[in-house]
Amino acid sequence: MKVAIIMGSDSDLPVMKESAEILEQLGIEHEITIVSAHRTPKRLYEYAENARSKGISVIIAGAGGSAHLPGMTASLTTLPVIGVPIKSRTLGGVDSLYSIVQMPPGIPVATVAINGAKNAGLLAASILSTTDNEIAEKLTTYKKDMEETVTQKAEELEKIGFEEYLSEK
Amino acid sequence: MKVAIIMGSDSDLPVMKESAEILEQLGIEHEITIVSAHRTPKRLYEYAENARSKGISVIIAGAGGSAHLPGMTASLTTLPVIGVPIKSRTLGGVDSLYSIVQMPPGIPVATVAINGAKNAGLLAASILSTTDNEIAEKLTTYKKDMEETVTQKAEELEKIGFEEYLSEK
Amino acid sequence: MKVAIIMGSDSDLPVMKESAEILEQLGIEHEITIVSAHRTPKRLYEYAENARSKGISVIIAGAGGSAHLPGMTASLTTLPVIGVPIKSRTLGGVDSLYSIVQMPPGIPVATVAINGAKNAGLLAASILSTTDNEIAEKLTTYKKDMEETVTQKAEELEKIGFEEYLSEK
Amino acid sequence: MKVAIIMGSDSDLPVMKESAEILEQLGIEHEITIVSAHRTPKRLYEYAENARSKGISVIIAGAGGSAHLPGMTASLTTLPVIGVPIKSRTLGGVDSLYSIVQMPPGIPVATVAINGAKNAGLLAASILSTTDNEIAEKLTTYKKDMEETVTQKAEELEKIGFEEYLSEK
Amino acid sequence: MKVAIIMGSDSDLPVMKESAEILEQLGIEHEITIVSAHRTPKRLYEYAENARSKGISVIIAGAGGSAHLPGMTASLTTLPVIGVPIKSRTLGGVDSLYSIVQMPPGIPVATVAINGAKNAGLLAASILSTTDNEIAEKLTTYKKDMEETVTQKAEELEKIGFEEYLSEK
Amino acid sequence: MKVAIIMGSDSDLPVMKESAEILEQLGIEHEITIVSAHRTPKRLYEYAENARSKGISVIIAGAGGSAHLPGMTASLTTLPVIGVPIKSRTLGGVDSLYSIVQMPPGIPVATVAINGAKNAGLLAASILSTTDNEIAEKLTTYKKDMEETVTQKAEELEKIGFEEYLSEK
Amino acid sequence: MKVAIIMGSDSDLPVMKESAEILEQLGIEHEITIVSAHRTPKRLYEYAENARSKGISVIIAGAGGSAHLPGMTASLTTLPVIGVPIKSRTLGGVDSLYSIVQMPPGIPVATVAINGAKNAGLLAASILSTTDNEIAEKLTTYKKDMEETVTQKAEELEKIGFEEYLSEK
Amino acid sequence: MKVAIIMGSDSDLPVMKESAEILEQLGIEHEITIVSAHRTPKRLYEYAENARSKGISVIIAGAGGSAHLPGMTASLTTLPVIGVPIKSRTLGGVDSLYSIVQMPPGIPVATVAINGAKNAGLLAASILSTTDNEIAEKLTTYKKDMEETVTQKAEELEKIGFEEYLSEK
Repeated sequence: MKVAIIMGSDSDLPVMKESAEILEQLGIEHEITIVSAHRTPKRLYEYAENARSKGISVIIAGAGGSAHLPGMTASLTTLPVIGVPIKSRTLGGVDSLYSIVQMPPGIPVATVAINGAKNAGLLAASILSTTDNEIAEKLTTYKKDMEETVTQKAEELEKIGFEEYLSEK
Repeated sequence: MKVAIIMGSDSDLPVMKESAEILEQLGIEHEITIVSAHRTPKRLYEYAENARSKGISVIIAGAGGSAHLPGMTASLTTLPVIGVPIKSRTLGGVDSLYSIVQMPPGIPVATVAINGAKNAGLLAASILSTTDNEIAEKLTTYKKDMEETVTQKAEELEKIGFEEYLSEK
Repeated sequence: MKVAIIMGSDSDLPVMKESAEILEQLGIEHEITIVSAHRTPKRLYEYAENARSKGISVIIAGAGGSAHLPGMTASLTTLPVIGVPIKSRTLGGVDSLYSIVQMPPGIPVATVAINGAKNAGLLAASILSTTDNEIAEKLTTYKKDMEETVTQKAEELEKIGFEEYLSEK
Repeated sequence: MKVAIIMGSDSDLPVMKESAEILEQLGIEHEITIVSAHRTPKRLYEYAENARSKGISVIIAGAGGSAHLPGMTASLTTLPVIGVPIKSRTLGGVDSLYSIVQMPPGIPVATVAINGAKNAGLLAASILSTTDNEIAEKLTTYKKDMEETVTQKAEELEKIGFEEYLSEK
Repeated sequence: MKVAIIMGSDSDLPVMKESAEILEQLGIEHEITIVSAHRTPKRLYEYAENARSKGISVIIAGAGGSAHLPGMTASLTTLPVIGVPIKSRTLGGVDSLYSIVQMPPGIPVATVAINGAKNAGLLAASILSTTDNEIAEKLTTYKKDMEETVTQKAEELEKIGFEEYLSEK
Repeated sequence: MKVAIIMGSDSDLPVMKESAEILEQLGIEHEITIVSAHRTPKRLYEYAENARSKGISVIIAGAGGSAHLPGMTASLTTLPVIGVPIKSRTLGGVDSLYSIVQMPPGIPVATVAINGAKNAGLLAASILSTTDNEIAEKLTTYKKDMEETVTQKAEELEKIGFEEYLSEK
Repeated sequence: MKVAIIMGSDSDLPVMKESAEILEQLGIEHEITIVSAHRTPKRLYEYAENARSKGISVIIAGAGGSAHLPGMTASLTTLPVIGVPIKSRTLGGVDSLYSIVQMPPGIPVATVAINGAKNAGLLAASILSTTDNEIAEKLTTYKKDMEETVTQKAEELEKIGFEEYLSEK
Repeated sequence: MKVAIIMGSDSDLPVMKESAEILEQLGIEHEITIVSAHRTPKRLYEYAENARSKGISVIIAGAGGSAHLPGMTASLTTLPVIGVPIKSRTLGGVDSLYSIVQMPPGIPVATVAINGAKNAGLLAASILSTTDNEIAEKLTTYKKDMEETVTQKAEELEKIGFEEYLSEK
């Protein structure tokens, strides 16, 4: 029950670390490394083909531009692959999104929002939660905490008004 | 270990039935129904909140236009939710895709291609395969069959040339 | 005759406060708070379902990315709901706009421009003006003031020329 | 308490009639005519300026391409103006949508979906419902009917399965 | 033989002044002012309807977002109207461009590039040059100067290489 | 005082003939031919360079996809060049539009709507009308006729209602 | 000096055969087959890695949607790879185009137009022409023929006018 | 066996120099200069028509906005032309990309990513490598170096973890 986080370049790390951080926070085992579909195609093959036997349950793959890493990983494993489109400099990440999400019939990639690495970690957790009650409970708690945070902010805003609320920030 | 397939309108059924068909083919238990985020918001709440206790492991949700069903379902359960953007008449499904994939931190939706209902079924299967070896083996077989089909077509094309290949179709 | 202003996150407040400010300026009663479709779905239900009986006449709802708040609010009330698409970091607000405006038949959302919170307030006022002559007159005055401001600027520009006009700013 | 429906060209009528039909169904008085911002600019001025004194409460304006009718109408009245972007032949209605929704601060247009004339009618009704309980009740009934229709379809689909459901259509 | 430069807001002046500057440089008479389609609709009518009789030959109109000024001006005069789409904060000017260029049959607007105010001035000059040989010759000289500037830069780049060329700038 | 109509391919003729038809209707002399920027680059040079001396006053150039004909023509003449973006099979004409309208400073193209060949003809007429009163009067008449047609349609629609209006068509 | 034409699916063959046809016409040796990046990833590796030693000089690769074939081929060979984005059903080929053209530094793909298989063949020919005078001459002839065809059509159009020209087709 | 690098303006040089740098690094002879399709159309004709006889094998052409330089160069030579779409200020380079890549049948341009000048240089090298073993070997080495760099970074990241990895940068 381990999650693998891979990315096409270390320039994606400031985004992709959010997957590791949320998994850390939820106490889910994970590993993180760089696998480039274009610069290390053989490493990609080995990594994807051995993932299941190494004990990996879910693979999170982040890439930008002509983002082929998530789809190629999915073509080489039967594990669920979560794709994170990285925001690109010229097209804002639309290129990354289309490259990852528009997979042909037969090879799905579970795509999250542009730069949505945190959600990729949460999605991995919810996948594991289908057979792991402890993780399911942690996710329930996580949701309740989010709800409470919003509720508290709402109460504060209602109480002090938006001018004071904004000036306190 | 059951997969739920929901959609916002019965006009989505010609696309969404492909999720059911592939799950059928893989021998995975599933149910299919209509839940509209906008027209039956209370039904949505009940359906999403009770899904896990009813024995559902994965929810596939298809919707078009301002497609809120997958995201709202994900906000009400800790189960993995797979979103299928339905092609829309005016914007080709870009509206559906953006409405489903661009979820805020905290609430992921595993988005597949526009009209990618078959891949949604396969993604659900791969999620179940993380703890079910039988499904994992079926997916491996499915992939090998796809590979073989392509290889046979390639051999035929190489042998008879494209004119004859196209005229035979 | 009260206007409610809700938003999905307090990060939307720097934009959404413009709705409050223009309503303040027009002397129209209003309340402002946070309601997240994804993080506080039950709060959303309660808020939207009770709005009319609480004396709310119009609801302004701002949200970004997969912006479901305006549409889900509209599905839970018969009051007019004005949607404000918040500019997003990766897609410039096109995702927010499509998520809010492309509602299916049966559940309209009155959508304004990306980040158009000021216009949302003015639209709420014009809705109230259909049966409130005082507000109608205030809007007439507001329009005349705008017209006069533009006319004065035009006169100044014509008089002093664009170099001086720009250097004075 | 009358709703006006105007459009830039009679080629928009097959779409815009849906506004009239839903208002008819809800028993709300309305009138329908053609006003072209570009071909009858003076007629536009007269129509928009006199609308309130003629007893119009809400104006629905549909237009396509460089769709200026809703915005120009809004500039000439303090009544709420609902804009319907008509699907265009070359850009699918994105041009119409942007032309209508991206209004500058001061002049709001309540924009609905591309070709969303039915929702424009419903939005007009919900605006009137803010001070008209009868219309409010009709809208509540309308929503309940929609909910019931979806629920019945869902039950049928659950009962007979998707193959039979689709073959019956 | 005078060119009018109008714009929807004085915030467009830093862009639109480039039209005035190039007309100045070419010795072509011009006037510059603010006319807002949305905030001063009556001023727009008067300005456009009287332009020809006042001796205006070409009108340059700049506007952003739901940019209705160029098209509405064109609907009120038979003079050629040049539209300058101003870059917008949220959609980069695509909204301005579509609002201006996608005019319906009968009412053309001569659209230039987003923020292309300089080219609007040159286009006005080329329109006048159809019957004014002096302006035609000035445009020929202008083109030759551009050509020469590029040729000189090319020669310098070829001579000193790109490192030195870039460091000199 | 002659207008030239050129296009990149005879497949553009069904669109571009509308320029000729409206010029014919207005009694303005014109010629029509094929000049391909990519397939007949030398013909383009000759055509553009000799246009003014041949008595051409305005050039209308239609092209699709990577539409270089209008811009290259403009680079080779000081006459006003009107560009008509032809709708393309894969991108709906957005490629044609961007290729034509986004010209760099120094070389303007007067761009009309996608497939807007009729407006290109009218724009050419309005350019000629700056010094030709007869054409100016014809354009005034043309506008009045359009206005009257819309007004008559509006009256008929108001009189007989939309059901009968639509059934008569 | 052989050109390889590969595609992700035999559904791409009606487009991709145009590469073969133009190479046939130019007398350039070629082979054509199916290689799916997603369904036959190992076949892709073998094919790309052995291409140069098999005597292939240029690889043309066509694919649609999340089009990974051209980029992955380029990552596995130092031969020039030409990518043909295939028009997709939902996004018109923008997804295919972005997936192919937006390659990261280090791994170029020579991208042609959406469905531009004929141009892919011509580009392969021009690559071979850099060291093969015979092919260079054939391309020169090909260009002259295109030029002549356009010139003849232009002459015919000028002679008989557009009505007769169109009616003869 | 020389590569030419041309660009429409010296403002493109900070991007286009990357083509020169990678060719320098690979020891491939090259020249760099400015040729504007719009401002120096005759220089373009001469440059493109004489390129082959001057010993040029491949032409790299960079341009932005209505980017006509690559396509017009390709129309005037049978040499392979590589197009580099330069990122534009208003549309992010989508205009440049569409202007370059969507060439009509008969005139291909080998398009690389927006601002992809480095890849343009590598593509030129791979074109030369089809008949030059030395360059082929250099490209093989270049690929191995990239692979090694990624592998080393991956090992470091795996060893020290992402917090330390990021803090060291």
